[in-house]
Amino acid sequence: MAKQKKMVDEITSMDVDFAKWYTDVVKKAELASYSNVRGCMVIRPYGTALWENIRNELDRRFKETGHENVMMPLFIPESLLQKEKDHVEGFAPEVAWITHGGEEKLTERLCVRPTSETLFCDHYSEIIHSYRDLPKLYNQWCSVVRWEKTTRPFLRTMEFFWQEGHTMHETAEEAIEETQRMLNVYSDFAENFLAIPVVKGLKTDKEKFAGAESTYTIEALMHDGKALQSGTSHYFGDGFSKAFDIEFTGRDNKLQYPHQTSWGMSSRIIGAIIMTHGDDNGLVLPPAVAPLQVAILPIAMHKEGVLEKANELAQKLSKTFRVKVDDSDNSAGWKFAEYEMKGVPLRLEIGPKDIENNQCVLVRRDNREKTFVALDELEVKVAELLQEVHNGLYEKALNRREEMTYSVTNLDEMIEKAENRPGFIKAMWCGELACEEKLKEVAGVTSRCIPFEQEKIADTCVCCGKPAKHMLYWGKAY
Amino acid sequence: MAKQKKMVDEITSMDVDFAKWYTDVVKKAELASYSNVRGCMVIRPYGTALWENIRNELDRRFKETGHENVMMPLFIPESLLQKEKDHVEGFAPEVAWITHGGEEKLTERLCVRPTSETLFCDHYSEIIHSYRDLPKLYNQWCSVVRWEKTTRPFLRTMEFFWQEGHTMHETAEEAIEETQRMLNVYSDFAENFLAIPVVKGLKTDKEKFAGAESTYTIEALMHDGKALQSGTSHYFGDGFSKAFDIEFTGRDNKLQYPHQTSWGMSSRIIGAIIMTHGDDNGLVLPPAVAPLQVAILPIAMHKEGVLEKANELAQKLSKTFRVKVDDSDNSAGWKFAEYEMKGVPLRLEIGPKDIENNQCVLVRRDNREKTFVALDELEVKVAELLQEVHNGLYEKALNRREEMTYSVTNLDEMIEKAENRPGFIKAMWCGELACEEKLKEVAGVTSRCIPFEQEKIADTCVCCGKPAKHMLYWGKAY
Repeated sequence: MAKQKKMVDEITSMDVDFAKWYTDVVKKAELASYSNVRGCMVIRPYGTALWENIRNELDRRFKETGHENVMMPLFIPESLLQKEKDHVEGFAPEVAWITHGGEEKLTERLCVRPTSETLFCDHYSEIIHSYRDLPKLYNQWCSVVRWEKTTRPFLRTMEFFWQEGHTMHETAEEAIEETQRMLNVYSDFAENFLAIPVVKGLKTDKEKFAGAESTYTIEALMHDGKALQSGTSHYFGDGFSKAFDIEFTGRDNKLQYPHQTSWGMSSRIIGAIIMTHGDDNGLVLPPAVAPLQVAILPIAMHKEGVLEKANELAQKLSKTFRVKVDDSDNSAGWKFAEYEMKGVPLRLEIGPKDIENNQCVLVRRDNREKTFVALDELEVKVAELLQEVHNGLYEKALNRREEMTYSVTNLDEMIEKAENRPGFIKAMWCGELACEEKLKEVAGVTSRCIPFEQEKIADTCVCCGKPAKHMLYWGKAY
Repeated sequence: MAKQKKMVDEITSMDVDFAKWYTDVVKKAELASYSNVRGCMVIRPYGTALWENIRNELDRRFKETGHENVMMPLFIPESLLQKEKDHVEGFAPEVAWITHGGEEKLTERLCVRPTSETLFCDHYSEIIHSYRDLPKLYNQWCSVVRWEKTTRPFLRTMEFFWQEGHTMHETAEEAIEETQRMLNVYSDFAENFLAIPVVKGLKTDKEKFAGAESTYTIEALMHDGKALQSGTSHYFGDGFSKAFDIEFTGRDNKLQYPHQTSWGMSSRIIGAIIMTHGDDNGLVLPPAVAPLQVAILPIAMHKEGVLEKANELAQKLSKTFRVKVDDSDNSAGWKFAEYEMKGVPLRLEIGPKDIENNQCVLVRRDNREKTFVALDELEVKVAELLQEVHNGLYEKALNRREEMTYSVTNLDEMIEKAENRPGFIKAMWCGELACEEKLKEVAGVTSRCIPFEQEKIADTCVCCGKPAKHMLYWGKAY
């Protein structure tokens, strides 16, 4: 297919400057804008609607799997944050500290929550007494704050939005099962709702969450060949339970510590949507999450009956789809560019000629394919095309990921690929931290995950040549 | 009607200690619990579900009236908070200050937002340029923080949950219209969704919001005769616009300042639900907002077919209502008390005898009325009874408010009523701050509002005897 003509001049081309392309899209599609608060975004109506669709669908899936929402405090007293050693070491350097309330200096500093394990554990210690109180399957939707040095909209901001699930279980087995269940919720959501293919696996000890025994992750590959960690699920064992004195009387009438998990997906995922599906004309939204699924554009609007017909179609379609008629006095060209920029999956054009022929035109955002549709078949055809857009986006992203995934067996190859071929690099690993650190130093890559689907690429570690334990995905990451 | 037997012994009776009754209900109905963070609550699953129902219904009404959601930063730099003089004076004494990010001391302090006028204005100054950009009808759902000295769950907490609408308009008329429209959304929501009758009116200058030109309010009367301000809507004129340099080119091609409103309803409203409808057996929830509308209790559960029938009814009812079968091995008495405590509007009992007769029993939470219902008519009857519960709660609350509303014409009467008759006190006022302050000092009452529905109780001010300007509602308030 020939390179398509770029309709919108204001945004930088991906190939010229990917980072600039990204921020241009965020701004021009009106997802977010910078605020006068360093590292914090204003998420604009279109971005908020996107996040609400993500939230509603994930929330539905969480409730379907038996979870309940709660709302925990925004603040954590310093002494509470310090209760679990690994956890405080991981987070203390990057929290915002409150030292004064009104005029009064506080006797103990409070931090703005960077994550809420400590608050949940504090609460669980109050309400868990017997095995009958288990499992506790809680989640919360909120924002958290981490004092980041450099920030980028959605990808890395001081304040970001997320959900954090925190669950407590009678046994380790049950908790591990929950950790995996929620990872599957995330991967299914990413693939079937957002059309983003992901690799599922386990983080290495170096990359796991502060305080966790193991961290599972879904990793997606962006257009520029960088990886984006898109959702994580942690198994904590009973480390926090011990630190927070959470004990319950078991079925055997003995006191024991419950086993814990936590899992989260954040507004970063909006960055993943942009960088997986977007193109040089702007955003391309997967239909399931798009705030607007069909933009209806009346052509020659002043002609009798055109606007009426457009509104009639909108009325009919709005029972099943998110639609809008644009009856503004902007030019047709402006409108085309606008809805392309905003990534609306389908554009519906209807003019006097179409009305005569009892038809309209549907144009796909992802590949610009035009279809003439009889008005009697409109609803069926819109549903079909939205499904095709979803499938098309998923396949395109999967093909790109496959093209950008390389296997290497020695250090020279690793360095060469890391330097010249952005993407996932599959390579064997001995399991030693030293090799992980060396690969970061010499090739600039980090381990993304130990994928559940293992392949044997070689017998020996790509770095030290000793016997290999696992095949890993490596790469540069956001 | 004879005083009903109290089924649950653990909670304090309202008449004995209303404040203790309130906190008992919050705790025993598992709405919220205290946390180890001073003045912050843990909102438990049942309380969160209640808030989500409030949020979803209000959000639907906001969207229906053309509003869009956005998400603003959590923090406000000190210099931004200081831009509008009255506003900073009102809020600076009660904000939480962040002075450090990680190890680093900040060059400028940030406060945790106590409300977001300044953030919205900062953003509006970036995006409003022409009359074509107006109106801007934004809302956000979030939590805010005010450094309160004494706190009570839902009623007054350091962190609380709310929505804040912030809108910008071409003209003063349009902005005032919006202020009133949103007040009407609140009063309609309070009365028709929460079954809480409210008085609508204007706040006096003393009681209005910091920085506003005028504040409209809905005031509800609690069981103990104290008032609760349940929602407010503010008209700002162009004061903030000037302070924040928000200018637009008008239809006349001249630069002008837009006119602003803001409006909010908070998690306090959960306190209003508790204290308007609750009784000595616990919570009583209006059906529209109840997380669980029908608790289905199989009687003699071990008998063949009982549990199956209960589940079958649940299946059928769940298409329209929020229902749950309690098949736990707790006693029937325990279950009755539990769902009474949680204020579930209807209890459905079904046992072997009922199944034989193709019927079940529905028991209303509000008045304990029992109805035998043929299973074929169940859905219709449940809908009817839920509507009756709603109507019954509203009428009961309205009657109580009318019984507890007094008119007074001189200071002695005012003092006597304020001391001995908790409730609303209607009295004339000259419009002078001095009288408002004196009434607070000698009678302990504050002005609740200048109601839209004025009555002429006397010609002269209840305090100074000079000619009266308005009839006001006065009272003690939460």
